[in-house]
Amino acid sequence: MSSLLIDNIGSLVTNAPDVGQGALGLLEDAALVIEDGLVAWAGPRALVPEGAARERFDAGGRAVIPGFVDSHAHLVFAGDRTSEFEARMSGRAYTAGGIRTTVAATRTATDDELRAGVRRLVGEALRSGTTTIECKSGYGLTVEDEARSLRLAAEQTAEVTYLGAHVVPPEYAGDPDAYVDLVRGAMLDACVPHARWIDVFCERGAFDGDQTRAILTAGKERGLVPRVHAGQLGPGPGVRIAVELGAASADHVTHLSDADVEALASGGTVATLLPGAEFSTRSPYPDARRLLDAGATVALAADCNPGSSYTTNIPFCIALAVRDMNMTPVEALRAATMGGAQALRRTDVGHLAPGARADFVLLDAPSHVHLAYRPGVPLVARVWKDGVPG
Amino acid sequence: MSSLLIDNIGSLVTNAPDVGQGALGLLEDAALVIEDGLVAWAGPRALVPEGAARERFDAGGRAVIPGFVDSHAHLVFAGDRTSEFEARMSGRAYTAGGIRTTVAATRTATDDELRAGVRRLVGEALRSGTTTIECKSGYGLTVEDEARSLRLAAEQTAEVTYLGAHVVPPEYAGDPDAYVDLVRGAMLDACVPHARWIDVFCERGAFDGDQTRAILTAGKERGLVPRVHAGQLGPGPGVRIAVELGAASADHVTHLSDADVEALASGGTVATLLPGAEFSTRSPYPDARRLLDAGATVALAADCNPGSSYTTNIPFCIALAVRDMNMTPVEALRAATMGGAQALRRTDVGHLAPGARADFVLLDAPSHVHLAYRPGVPLVARVWKDGVPG
Repeated sequence: MSSLLIDNIGSLVTNAPDVGQGALGLLEDAALVIEDGLVAWAGPRALVPEGAARERFDAGGRAVIPGFVDSHAHLVFAGDRTSEFEARMSGRAYTAGGIRTTVAATRTATDDELRAGVRRLVGEALRSGTTTIECKSGYGLTVEDEARSLRLAAEQTAEVTYLGAHVVPPEYAGDPDAYVDLVRGAMLDACVPHARWIDVFCERGAFDGDQTRAILTAGKERGLVPRVHAGQLGPGPGVRIAVELGAASADHVTHLSDADVEALASGGTVATLLPGAEFSTRSPYPDARRLLDAGATVALAADCNPGSSYTTNIPFCIALAVRDMNMTPVEALRAATMGGAQALRRTDVGHLAPGARADFVLLDAPSHVHLAYRPGVPLVARVWKDGVPG
Repeated sequence: MSSLLIDNIGSLVTNAPDVGQGALGLLEDAALVIEDGLVAWAGPRALVPEGAARERFDAGGRAVIPGFVDSHAHLVFAGDRTSEFEARMSGRAYTAGGIRTTVAATRTATDDELRAGVRRLVGEALRSGTTTIECKSGYGLTVEDEARSLRLAAEQTAEVTYLGAHVVPPEYAGDPDAYVDLVRGAMLDACVPHARWIDVFCERGAFDGDQTRAILTAGKERGLVPRVHAGQLGPGPGVRIAVELGAASADHVTHLSDADVEALASGGTVATLLPGAEFSTRSPYPDARRLLDAGATVALAADCNPGSSYTTNIPFCIALAVRDMNMTPVEALRAATMGGAQALRRTDVGHLAPGARADFVLLDAPSHVHLAYRPGVPLVARVWKDGVPG
C-alpha cells in the first residue's frame, strides 16, 4: 500500500463542511494522508493519525486545494485561429469561416496530429491545476470524424461529450434538418461507444429548440446524458430544454430569462459559466450573482477552444469570475472544483474528504484567495493526480 | 568573447522597423546573434552572418520577443493584504488601513525580510518575461525607512524611484505640509544617493497640485527625474504638472481631460497604463484608444503592489489591454516593451536591434499574438537577460 503524508499545509481547502470551516471546509495548519490514490484522512496537523511508514511531503505552510474540475472543453482540433483573433481585437473585418476553419483543418489532420493536440492541452491544463477535464467533439461533423474525435478524446479523459450538433457543416447548409437526422442517427450510432455525454449548441445560427430536443432525446435513449450550450449569444430555449430533459449542465447561460433562472435554481441542472469566452470575444459577462442568489449551483470552466476562448487556465477564470462576475473568491473556487464535479455528476473529485480521489494542488501562496488576488501570476507549484505528483 | 546563436525563430519581434516589418519590426523564420550580452545581429535565418564558434539554441519555430520593461512597481513592502482584497471582492466592509497597513508592516520588517520580498517578486517577474523592472519606495515614509527601501531596491534594479510622497503617514495626519517639507528636505537628502527617479501620488486624498509641484521641483534640483501618479481615481492636475516639469511618465491616467490628452500627445511624457489596478479594484479602465489616436506614447506596466494590483505578470496586462482597453495585440506588446523603455528613458532595452541588450523571451507559441489570444496560459518558456538564460 502506497502512503503519502502532505504535511505542514498552511491552509487546506477540502470543500467538505464536515471536515473544515465554511463552504470551503477550510482547515489551517493541516495535513492530508493519501493511500492508494485516495484521500485517507484530512485534518489538523496536530491530529494526524498514526500510520504505516509514509513518504512525507512538506507543503511549507502553503495552501493546498482540490484539483480543478473543468467541465467544458473543446480540445480535439487542428490549426489555430490567431489571425481571426487578431483581426477581431484590432477592429478589422475578417472573412474567414470561424468554426468552419477549424472543422476543415480537423478533418484533414491525422490521428497523431489530433492526439498530440489533445495531449498538449490536457497536459497544459494539468500543470495549471486541472486534474479532471471534459472534452467534446464538434470539429469533425462527419460520422467518421466525430467518432474519431471522441475516440481520441477518450484516450485522455473519461469525460467525453458527443457534440455533433456544434454547427451545421457547410455541406448541409441547404438542408440543416438532414444534418440533424444524421446527428441523431448514424453519427450517434458511431459515437455512443466512445462518449458519456451528449451536447447541443442551442443558439440562433446553430440549432433551434426543436432540433436540440430531438438530438438530446435520441442521445438519452442510447444512454448518453445531456448537457447544453445555452444562452451564449442571446436568449433562447436552451435552458428550459436542459432542465426539462434532466441535463447535467447548461453552459454559458449569459442570457437568461427569470424563468430560466428559476428553472436552474429549482432543477438538477448546474449553471456552468465560461468567462474565458466573454473575455476573448469582448462580450458582456453572465450575471453570476443572479444565479447564486437564486440558489442555482454554479460551475466555472475554461471552455478551451481555438475560436472564442483559447485558454486552459482555471486560475485566470477564477480571477475573472471575481472581478467581472461579482463572485466572491470562495464562490469562484468552489465553482471551479465542486461545481465542476457536480456538472459532471462526479462525487469522487472536486473535494478532499476521505474517500475522494487524491487530486490536489499546492499553491505558491498562503491562501486560495491569492488565485484572484494575484491575477495572471502562475501560482500552481505542484499538482497531484490520483496521489501521483505531476 | 561569448557568442550565442538563437536559431529557428518562427516569429521574431525586434521593435526595430528598419530590421523587420511594421511597428513590431517583425521577422519570420529568423535568427538572433548575441555577443557579450548584446544583440550583434537580427535577421532572416538564411542570412545569418558567418561567425566564430557559437553556442546554438534552437527555438523550434516558436516566437521570440524583447523582454518586457515594467516601468511601474512597488516591490519593497512587508505583509500582504489578502483579507482586505477578499472583503472588497465579497462586498464586505473592511476597516483596516489600506496603504497604512503595509507601511506599518514595512517599518517593522528587517532588511533581510524586505530584501527577500523584493527578490521574490523580481524573480517572479523575470520568470514571466520581465527583464527590466522599476521599483519605488513609498511604504517607509520616514527618512530612514524610505532610504532603506531605496537602498534595498537598488540591490535588484537600476530603476529606483523615490516615492516618499505616496501617502501622508498617520503621524503627520494633522500637518500634511510638514510632511511635504520632510519629503523635499531631509528625506530627499537621504534618498538622492539611492534613486534615479522621483514620483508623487498626485490625487485627492494624497498630494495636491502645489504639493506635487514642490516635491518634484526639489527632486529635479537634486538630479532626480520626475514621474507622476496622475488621474488614477479622479481628474486632477497631475498630468499637467508632469508634462510641465518634463516627467518621463504620467502613470495610471485613467481620468483625463482633453487638455491632458493633448499635453501627453504633444509633450515628452509617456502615458503609462496600469490595467492590473483597475482589474483588482473593479474600476473602469483607462481609454487607451483616446491616447493612441491622439498620438501619445503609451506604456503598459503591472503596478505590482499588495493593495491594488498584486501581479507581476505582463502577459496578463497585455491580455487586459487588448480586451478591456481596446488596444490591438501589436499596440499592447509594443507598449509593454518599447513603451516601458521610453517611460524609463532607456534606449538599450525594449527592442532587439543590433547594440541592444540581449534581453529576450522565448514563447511557447508560434506568435506574440498568443499573449492575448491565450489569456492566463503561462506561455513564457525561457528568458534571457544580458544574453544569459534564466
